[in-house]
Amino acid sequence: MSLSEFDVIKQFFTGLTDARDDVVAGIGDDCALLDVPPGRHLAVSVDTLVAGRHFLADADPESVGHKALAVNLSDLAAAGAEPAWATLALTLPAVDTDWLRGFSRGFAALAGRHGVALVGGDTTGGPLSITVTVHGFVAVDRVLTRGGARPGDRVCVSGTVGDAALALARRLRGEAVPAELAVRLDRPLPRVALGRLLGGTASAAIDVSDGLLADLGHVCARSGVGARVERDRIPLSPALATYCRGGDWSPVLGGGDDYELLCCVPPEQLPALRVACDDAGEHLTEIGELVERPGIVLVTPDGDQPVDPGAGFDHFRGAAAPR
Amino acid sequence: MSLSEFDVIKQFFTGLTDARDDVVAGIGDDCALLDVPPGRHLAVSVDTLVAGRHFLADADPESVGHKALAVNLSDLAAAGAEPAWATLALTLPAVDTDWLRGFSRGFAALAGRHGVALVGGDTTGGPLSITVTVHGFVAVDRVLTRGGARPGDRVCVSGTVGDAALALARRLRGEAVPAELAVRLDRPLPRVALGRLLGGTASAAIDVSDGLLADLGHVCARSGVGARVERDRIPLSPALATYCRGGDWSPVLGGGDDYELLCCVPPEQLPALRVACDDAGEHLTEIGELVERPGIVLVTPDGDQPVDPGAGFDHFRGAAAPR
Repeated sequence: MSLSEFDVIKQFFTGLTDARDDVVAGIGDDCALLDVPPGRHLAVSVDTLVAGRHFLADADPESVGHKALAVNLSDLAAAGAEPAWATLALTLPAVDTDWLRGFSRGFAALAGRHGVALVGGDTTGGPLSITVTVHGFVAVDRVLTRGGARPGDRVCVSGTVGDAALALARRLRGEAVPAELAVRLDRPLPRVALGRLLGGTASAAIDVSDGLLADLGHVCARSGVGARVERDRIPLSPALATYCRGGDWSPVLGGGDDYELLCCVPPEQLPALRVACDDAGEHLTEIGELVERPGIVLVTPDGDQPVDPGAGFDHFRGAAAPR
Repeated sequence: MSLSEFDVIKQFFTGLTDARDDVVAGIGDDCALLDVPPGRHLAVSVDTLVAGRHFLADADPESVGHKALAVNLSDLAAAGAEPAWATLALTLPAVDTDWLRGFSRGFAALAGRHGVALVGGDTTGGPLSITVTVHGFVAVDRVLTRGGARPGDRVCVSGTVGDAALALARRLRGEAVPAELAVRLDRPLPRVALGRLLGGTASAAIDVSDGLLADLGHVCARSGVGARVERDRIPLSPALATYCRGGDWSPVLGGGDDYELLCCVPPEQLPALRVACDDAGEHLTEIGELVERPGIVLVTPDGDQPVDPGAGFDHFRGAAAPR
């Protein structure tokens, strides 16, 4: 069977390619032609998932399709941006229609939920990998970056962390993975609505993809601050709370792949932000505070521990990396 | 050696990442934040190059870096767009600093020539592949697509075609490849300036990546027309003219990878377009005419031959594909 790139996209992504009025020309031409609304910055991010590294080669294709878009939408969320368009570069060892059907179902369901149109694609033969570039809009006065945090700001995180890393560790060891953990690894939900609430309120934000401390380290480095994190305030699911009682906090502190938002909030903004979060059904947990002195200190019942935020996931460390 | 994605980009792409005033926030945050000028559409295109398919695994990395951007800029050219920004997703089997140095040199030289800033990146471990997404601007009244061609329009092509395909065929057979052919395969020059001249004048355009007849077929399908192409008017380099005298026209008609522009021009626009091309040092050759009747007919000294434009490069045909 032979499918050209347009056929693949036409056949499997119908309805996604002309889903928005701001798509002047979509898939099927050399370029998509798109309109950015006045007064908005265009936000752009790119992420690649490689089989055998970011997902297992025999992973459920629907989950892979979901995740390929989710990790990118999570970057838009961290910038406070409203998702709009995506391009999809699919490298496939062969045209496997079952796999493509599942992949496109997962991708399309999440795209539909966030109003994302698929505006460009390239399909090539080769080892399985997926690169998605997402585009969104952010009002010029609601920009959210890693670089605006100040000493005294509170460090907050959404949801719970560590679930995805524990799920992956168990799966790689061939152990059973409870569904409530597996879903966090396979179908992460980008915190798009929360990100838009944070724009104009939080001083900095990042999504937790490399690991809680690694990502906090990125914010601290860009903002020129340090942080104190109270380990026992980090929000945990029941499964993780049980696991951490065994003494291993690595999935929580260094695991990554959570796609929660870590943000820094000036204390005077916290009360109003909490109200806005409650109204929107979002939740933030305060886990620490920014300080002037560079470096991250983990506050535990056993005392303060300076930590190396770079000890988290590193793309080239191979087997030691948690994803 | 271990390099995080930011280190790779910081180390090897310095100077490319903040090269433009319209980059509000570039690499180093979750998203780039960018400004599209008023009155312009945003043009977006994505292309992947996979080692062993689009380039040989031992190819000169500087040429690979050049080509990864060139094939994308060629899509902007075909839309009449002015290049602005690129994102780069690099999947690498290992961190090879010599390779990265060469790759970034080739990428950066072409980016600099076209004023392109690198605004986003992802580096992952895995089989060597490169996905670039390019962004440009096109004035709303100068949009160029595949879909506007009409019967009677003249079919024109820039430069010469077939050189890249012949170079590849010879290289794959282990034969010597003359430098003037190799450069067409390894360092294609996107026809950006010509594309911008065509906007508002040509009725349709496409870049010749799949093959001359295949790409003309794409235009005809989108525009709802047919075409007659006079084979002996197709512009050939001296090497190709010699080769074609042997009777094999496949590199010219079906080869692809030329990255010339194929365009359709209403006859009354041709004289002014020729003057504009001369002023800009660009060249177009008229090779045929669009007709109402669907299908492509190749006019040769031996008579008219109906051709199947789909007989060109197909991503999933494997060894038969010329790239």
